[in-house]
Amino acid sequence: MKILLTAFDPFGGEEINPAEEAVRLVADRIGGADIVKLTVPTVFGKSIEIAAEAIRRENPDAVLMIGQAGGRSAITPERVAININDARIADNAGHIPTDEPIAKNGPAAYFSTLPIKKMVEAIRAEGIPANVSDSAGTFVCNQLMYGVLDLLQREYPGTVGGFMHIPFAPEQTAKQHHPAPSMSIEDVRRGIEAALRAIAETL
Amino acid sequence: MKILLTAFDPFGGEEINPAEEAVRLVADRIGGADIVKLTVPTVFGKSIEIAAEAIRRENPDAVLMIGQAGGRSAITPERVAININDARIADNAGHIPTDEPIAKNGPAAYFSTLPIKKMVEAIRAEGIPANVSDSAGTFVCNQLMYGVLDLLQREYPGTVGGFMHIPFAPEQTAKQHHPAPSMSIEDVRRGIEAALRAIAETL
Amino acid sequence: MKILLTAFDPFGGEEINPAEEAVRLVADRIGGADIVKLTVPTVFGKSIEIAAEAIRRENPDAVLMIGQAGGRSAITPERVAININDARIADNAGHIPTDEPIAKNGPAAYFSTLPIKKMVEAIRAEGIPANVSDSAGTFVCNQLMYGVLDLLQREYPGTVGGFMHIPFAPEQTAKQHHPAPSMSIEDVRRGIEAALRAIAETL
Amino acid sequence: MKILLTAFDPFGGEEINPAEEAVRLVADRIGGADIVKLTVPTVFGKSIEIAAEAIRRENPDAVLMIGQAGGRSAITPERVAININDARIADNAGHIPTDEPIAKNGPAAYFSTLPIKKMVEAIRAEGIPANVSDSAGTFVCNQLMYGVLDLLQREYPGTVGGFMHIPFAPEQTAKQHHPAPSMSIEDVRRGIEAALRAIAETL
Repeated sequence: MKILLTAFDPFGGEEINPAEEAVRLVADRIGGADIVKLTVPTVFGKSIEIAAEAIRRENPDAVLMIGQAGGRSAITPERVAININDARIADNAGHIPTDEPIAKNGPAAYFSTLPIKKMVEAIRAEGIPANVSDSAGTFVCNQLMYGVLDLLQREYPGTVGGFMHIPFAPEQTAKQHHPAPSMSIEDVRRGIEAALRAIAETL
Repeated sequence: MKILLTAFDPFGGEEINPAEEAVRLVADRIGGADIVKLTVPTVFGKSIEIAAEAIRRENPDAVLMIGQAGGRSAITPERVAININDARIADNAGHIPTDEPIAKNGPAAYFSTLPIKKMVEAIRAEGIPANVSDSAGTFVCNQLMYGVLDLLQREYPGTVGGFMHIPFAPEQTAKQHHPAPSMSIEDVRRGIEAALRAIAETL
Repeated sequence: MKILLTAFDPFGGEEINPAEEAVRLVADRIGGADIVKLTVPTVFGKSIEIAAEAIRRENPDAVLMIGQAGGRSAITPERVAININDARIADNAGHIPTDEPIAKNGPAAYFSTLPIKKMVEAIRAEGIPANVSDSAGTFVCNQLMYGVLDLLQREYPGTVGGFMHIPFAPEQTAKQHHPAPSMSIEDVRRGIEAALRAIAETL
Repeated sequence: MKILLTAFDPFGGEEINPAEEAVRLVADRIGGADIVKLTVPTVFGKSIEIAAEAIRRENPDAVLMIGQAGGRSAITPERVAININDARIADNAGHIPTDEPIAKNGPAAYFSTLPIKKMVEAIRAEGIPANVSDSAGTFVCNQLMYGVLDLLQREYPGTVGGFMHIPFAPEQTAKQHHPAPSMSIEDVRRGIEAALRAIAETL
């Protein structure tokens, strides 16, 4: 049993991406599954390509993608990815797409095929705030989730996949006058591991 | 050199008080100062009595009081305590005072005599969000801060003192539908220790 | 030229629905279009039936649905409706569906076919806060938006449609201890009329 | 019977100050009291001088000062002003004082002598969100409140006074991506008039 676990590199002027920091600390084996880790660039298109390569190479049973959603107080498994890119800030290659479809003839949306409610329960059971989110936004995170689910649906129907957003790390907000909510990297790591156990149980 | 470090017991229906949990983990010696720990009850009047007893017994060089301010995202040294009790929920003895002075003929307010800006800098330097707060509320926290500063001013002019609020712990908000911001007990401990070092440097 | 303008009745224990109050005040003719108003019940299924009847009867050129999203500070045209009902509170008939599809074999989502960015610009030009929202939730609002877009797509391809959420009215939050953001019914009316003008210009 | 009603001019890069806009619309006679209006500059020191001149000239029975507190959702009568200036942005004369007392030998704080709870009730009765605030900040608003209460206490013991903060106006937040809460100028006017009636009843 194998789970591909992805995280983005830093973007939007931040020095770290807490997703990448936390994923680095996740155990290599969880709930009987081998965890294969991958950092993807915060770049429209390129991030899907890099994830797709890893899926072809590793042929995982599940894909869990992690990204930062600054401003949230909880770890939030995403319910759905929608077929649109609409950015307000540049990705790491300088692109700011406006109202462009991710896949020209693709469906309007893909629902996560991960057990998102079970993941929420498992994270909460660790004493860590978690909730289902109904929007992954319209930036690179949503685009990666859509692109990977599109690939899985078309070529790997036996592989489940989905996305989970995490809050800022405290070190990112420490000097803000009105600090946004944050969560320690250590708690994020524990939350990701709890989610992975919940996923592994359903494989 | 000795610093009295106080925390409240749980209140408002919570099972824990993160202030008490974090204080328990604080080192016994920081920056050359002995740290004397004390839990005070979340009760108007009684909390001041218990703290006053400890001050008389220990004769500390500084007093740092810690309390929970649910909803905040940062550790917040308080700037000022005001001479009023005005509660919306009951304290742990069932009292809900409305617009009552803490000290009948006392001054309208006492400013913290701790180095609050240095404490903020020291906490932030640990990568933990911190800010000066301009209101300790009108519940038991403000009342304890006022009562202790009143005692120090009258009887222990060489002893500095002040209050610091901390966020909810993640385990308190884990099951909320829209979780309030939280901070791990471990980060709160590190923040308190950084504040204590900043205080010890000025003694 | 005709635009059907719908609003929900009160729900969730509220005495009014600001959407219904504001729609009542909207002019009967805007930007050359006749405005036909309809109140729909806050009930899963039934709300779609009532709206569908009106669409069949009136054969409008556009459908703009309005609903309350307590907690928001701005008028928010919705980008997308997703094929799921997942309630936390009961609708007005006592139903609390959990993770049920709205249309068994329907697509995962429908994008609004209204000019949502132009609507945002038109509302802002009136000095009223507005933004595109990427989630209409998973309660009756999202369900009505999905159901109406599904009907239009299948039977009325020449009719555009979409949903717009509005904040609480001040009278709903006046007595809250920490009041949620609100917007006056009069400003909501002006915002809806600005959105209708933007829609009429594209018909 | 006479009430002096003050408002600040715009500051912090804003084009309007909703306090000034709303005060302009307030009736000239309310609850049997003549309302004398005054705009004061958002400048440390100068604002107190201008208000003091008007108090000497008009000899009012009460002084109600109004200022903008961007980010709040409600009209908030202030409970207390504290003896410190600590700015993060420049006032309209370019001053950014840091931890300076307003009055060198003044008391640490002055409590409002207005009926703040009655004012809250009166505003809420109009369907407008209101709450007592425990901090007027440490910028020009707090400084004016402190300075005027200091003057009244020393020279006009028969005159009551206090401060009330109001939210942003919608036109100030209309183009923000995540708009801060706002309140229409018309609702602010109604709120101020309700507060003035509550004050007049106690004179």
